[in-house]
Amino acid sequence: MEEVTVRVLGIDPGSQVTGYGVVEKAGRGLRHIVHGEIRPGKGATLTACLQSIYVDLTEVIDLSAPDALVIENIFYGKNVRSLIRQGHCRGVAILAGKQRGIAVYEYAPLEIKKAIVGYGRAEKAQVQMMVKAILNLPELPPPDAADALAVAICHINFRKTEPI
Amino acid sequence: MEEVTVRVLGIDPGSQVTGYGVVEKAGRGLRHIVHGEIRPGKGATLTACLQSIYVDLTEVIDLSAPDALVIENIFYGKNVRSLIRQGHCRGVAILAGKQRGIAVYEYAPLEIKKAIVGYGRAEKAQVQMMVKAILNLPELPPPDAADALAVAICHINFRKTEPI
Repeated sequence: MEEVTVRVLGIDPGSQVTGYGVVEKAGRGLRHIVHGEIRPGKGATLTACLQSIYVDLTEVIDLSAPDALVIENIFYGKNVRSLIRQGHCRGVAILAGKQRGIAVYEYAPLEIKKAIVGYGRAEKAQVQMMVKAILNLPELPPPDAADALAVAICHINFRKTEPI
Repeated sequence: MEEVTVRVLGIDPGSQVTGYGVVEKAGRGLRHIVHGEIRPGKGATLTACLQSIYVDLTEVIDLSAPDALVIENIFYGKNVRSLIRQGHCRGVAILAGKQRGIAVYEYAPLEIKKAIVGYGRAEKAQVQMMVKAILNLPELPPPDAADALAVAICHINFRKTEPI
């Protein structure tokens, strides 16, 4: 039987920091490809933030050639202003995938935490530690990159088939 | 004294309909260049909507060569789900301008209605009629295109100098 290799780009979008992480399923194992954070810099305008997320993610896609782009649902508990801002960032992140012809999937925060830590109320630090352990990383990934790797791992485990 | 010509692209973004309109200030008069609506079609996925807004607006920009892209602030009265969705659409609309090197400005709904109808609580139909009158159009523009033309006219009158 042939082993299927799937390469997934996870994204945790935000106007201050956008985390990304690429994970590959090779046979039964998981392989960490790359992770990082996009930081438009303090005082960057909204338009500059959106451009930097779009351009940098497009570069990540071109370099890592993922089969799927996966992103967290927006969590409704925040204040409306930050929800809208995050909506802008998430929109251009999704567009980056679509413009490269890659299917885009989304998962709820609870699904992601459950897939990684085992229960939905896990803390950010627990996600970082579990991601480090699952992917055998030499050190803790920074929080937003860890969240991005987590959503990529979540997709490899759950494999939703309906792109958004 | 030289007359300054300014060409402004107004946008009213939404996942079902995105209105756009281009208005030119030529001397003391206003000139209508073009308007239209982007409709991704019923049942279009979120990613397809975002791509269609981005690709179509980029085409409008390339064809009409505006000096500024102007967009309405998001109105907070709606439900959170639709706010987030509109945030996605607005994000890719702003990105379309930024990727073409055009300054992006935003105005509050109240400012726009005041600039067009004279008071902030105007109905959608009043905006349509005033836009038709101001620009000497042969017929009423459709509602979302009228809103887009309105925000373009608003910018020509107010001329904010701080891009977002």
